[in-house]
Amino acid sequence: MLHRRIHMTTYNIALIGFGGVNRALAELIATKNPLWERDLGFRLNIVAVSDLYLGSVISPNGLDAKTLVEANFAKGGFGQLSGGSAEADNETIIKTAPADLIVEATFTNPKDGEPAVSHCRWALQSGKHVVTTNKGPVAIAAQELKAVAHANGVHFEYEGSVMSGTPVIRMAERTLAGAEVKGFEGILNGTSNFVLGRMEGGLDFATAVKEAQILGYAEADPTADVEGFDVRLKVVILANELLGASLKPEEVTCKGISKLSPSDIENAAAANSRWKLVGSAVRNEDGTVTGSVSPKQLPFEHPLAGVNGATNAVSLNTELLGSVTITGPGAGRIETAYALLSDIIAIHNAQATAKREAA
Amino acid sequence: MLHRRIHMTTYNIALIGFGGVNRALAELIATKNPLWERDLGFRLNIVAVSDLYLGSVISPNGLDAKTLVEANFAKGGFGQLSGGSAEADNETIIKTAPADLIVEATFTNPKDGEPAVSHCRWALQSGKHVVTTNKGPVAIAAQELKAVAHANGVHFEYEGSVMSGTPVIRMAERTLAGAEVKGFEGILNGTSNFVLGRMEGGLDFATAVKEAQILGYAEADPTADVEGFDVRLKVVILANELLGASLKPEEVTCKGISKLSPSDIENAAAANSRWKLVGSAVRNEDGTVTGSVSPKQLPFEHPLAGVNGATNAVSLNTELLGSVTITGPGAGRIETAYALLSDIIAIHNAQATAKREAA
Repeated sequence: MLHRRIHMTTYNIALIGFGGVNRALAELIATKNPLWERDLGFRLNIVAVSDLYLGSVISPNGLDAKTLVEANFAKGGFGQLSGGSAEADNETIIKTAPADLIVEATFTNPKDGEPAVSHCRWALQSGKHVVTTNKGPVAIAAQELKAVAHANGVHFEYEGSVMSGTPVIRMAERTLAGAEVKGFEGILNGTSNFVLGRMEGGLDFATAVKEAQILGYAEADPTADVEGFDVRLKVVILANELLGASLKPEEVTCKGISKLSPSDIENAAAANSRWKLVGSAVRNEDGTVTGSVSPKQLPFEHPLAGVNGATNAVSLNTELLGSVTITGPGAGRIETAYALLSDIIAIHNAQATAKREAA
Repeated sequence: MLHRRIHMTTYNIALIGFGGVNRALAELIATKNPLWERDLGFRLNIVAVSDLYLGSVISPNGLDAKTLVEANFAKGGFGQLSGGSAEADNETIIKTAPADLIVEATFTNPKDGEPAVSHCRWALQSGKHVVTTNKGPVAIAAQELKAVAHANGVHFEYEGSVMSGTPVIRMAERTLAGAEVKGFEGILNGTSNFVLGRMEGGLDFATAVKEAQILGYAEADPTADVEGFDVRLKVVILANELLGASLKPEEVTCKGISKLSPSDIENAAAANSRWKLVGSAVRNEDGTVTGSVSPKQLPFEHPLAGVNGATNAVSLNTELLGSVTITGPGAGRIETAYALLSDIIAIHNAQATAKREAA
């Protein structure tokens, strides 16, 4: 609706972690750069990659994304590349790679967020933007990392830390600006939602989890998904971001779905309702924010009751609009890589503004 | 997530039409200006109002919003006010009021969009921004009006023309930038959706419509709602905006719900599905866009099947994210007034950028 000027820009990026998500981003880069140049005004150039298994590589002129994706590197395989090493020296890569932007997609550590928090801090302190899909550093250190970003004149963006590419944070903060978000409730874990769906289909909890594991929806240790710990991190991120809270994970009450029995499921169905694992937070009268994770029996007509399988959804409760719900994928390689792209678009738009301002 | 500088600004606005929506905007202005100053960086000042029934008034220093809302004006009542007239001289008001921005909320004319198209054109040609919730001018003349806005260095914004305050246009264009929208399907008319729900509850079509009329959900002549003509205008707006089409209303096939019988409803339920009036459009292989409005039998697990009552929803089909659905109010006085506020926020953010650029 608004007219934007297009500035052509190349962002040199370094990928920290080369698992499913960053590999999917490289796949997109291999094919989408011409489209992004035309529609978004920038292209992406991978100048460094670091991965615990594969090693690390810096290439100031850029690595070929297609080769990176298609080469079937063995352990330490980046050591064979020019500028490569069999070791993943994340700190050196982050601090010295000639990158404008660091893409952090290593594993989530729910205790202290490390080493991802350090990855983000090193990058921001070096004057590099950070985009991440990693819940750990956002749930545990967003406030500090935002301050470091601000002090260094760069951006810290993390849309994919909550619902993969489904843009719940930007929808709440940008497109619903002025609507006055008072609270939210969401289905924020696809694994537990799939398990509940299979229990409605007649399986008991253990059998449903086993099926989810066979289908690749649940990990060997499903605890984080079914006991609500994954949802709790997402509740912390959303509460702190959308409601201005400063919650820590341990301040959010957390109950999972493992105690639900087949008769609980049947009783809910008999009452025209179904169990969902709901993560929620609300701003109280006194300005404090309370978050919780718990199975809830939702009537069929509840906006979250029809959210099936691995799909995620968040209903935002607003002063001016009432309830607005966004529903979409909560996982997926390409879907999560899109979250990184959406973060880079946000940075690009802010940068374009700053450039015009300086001109 | 991004740091924005706050510039304090007052926008002088003129309200064209003083029915439910613009009256609700005035209600918000009466109480929310201090909050908006703090959180959004601007306040709104009503310098003119024009209404077919009440007359018109220009007050360069601003009218008191609270008085406007609470005074129980009779026909031609604005004539009693300083700077007022018992006649609604829209053209003079739009062209001469000392307003930065015109808020167009008169009635929707589905044939040629008039007189709203002229209201918008006059305003834009006078160098005034336009925000509107009026489907008519957007469905019929968006391309022309956007060109006039561009030529005059002002903005034409119309989020509320499709789903009231639920931000489907900005979500698709802004927060889903780069996700590559390929098509959409939506429940875009609350009246017909309410009627279908009551038919599922056992009523026949005529009785359900009568109930909707008694509850104020349907107009005396329910044709536009139940025959799909209202949805068709919204499909045109979304197809042209999100898919780059240039559809005219008559190019969108249109079938309503009046021919659905109780046995159609029962048969759907027996097949674990329900009828919904679906407006949709898709970009074809050859780049053309096809739009349609038709009742569709959706399986219960379809993302739109659980959208009940007067709620609206649109599922966007995207290349990188698959299906993303936004669900929220599709009507309501305050909800639609919020759409106008969201348009003004978008203009303000663009203006703030332009100002910094010029500095």
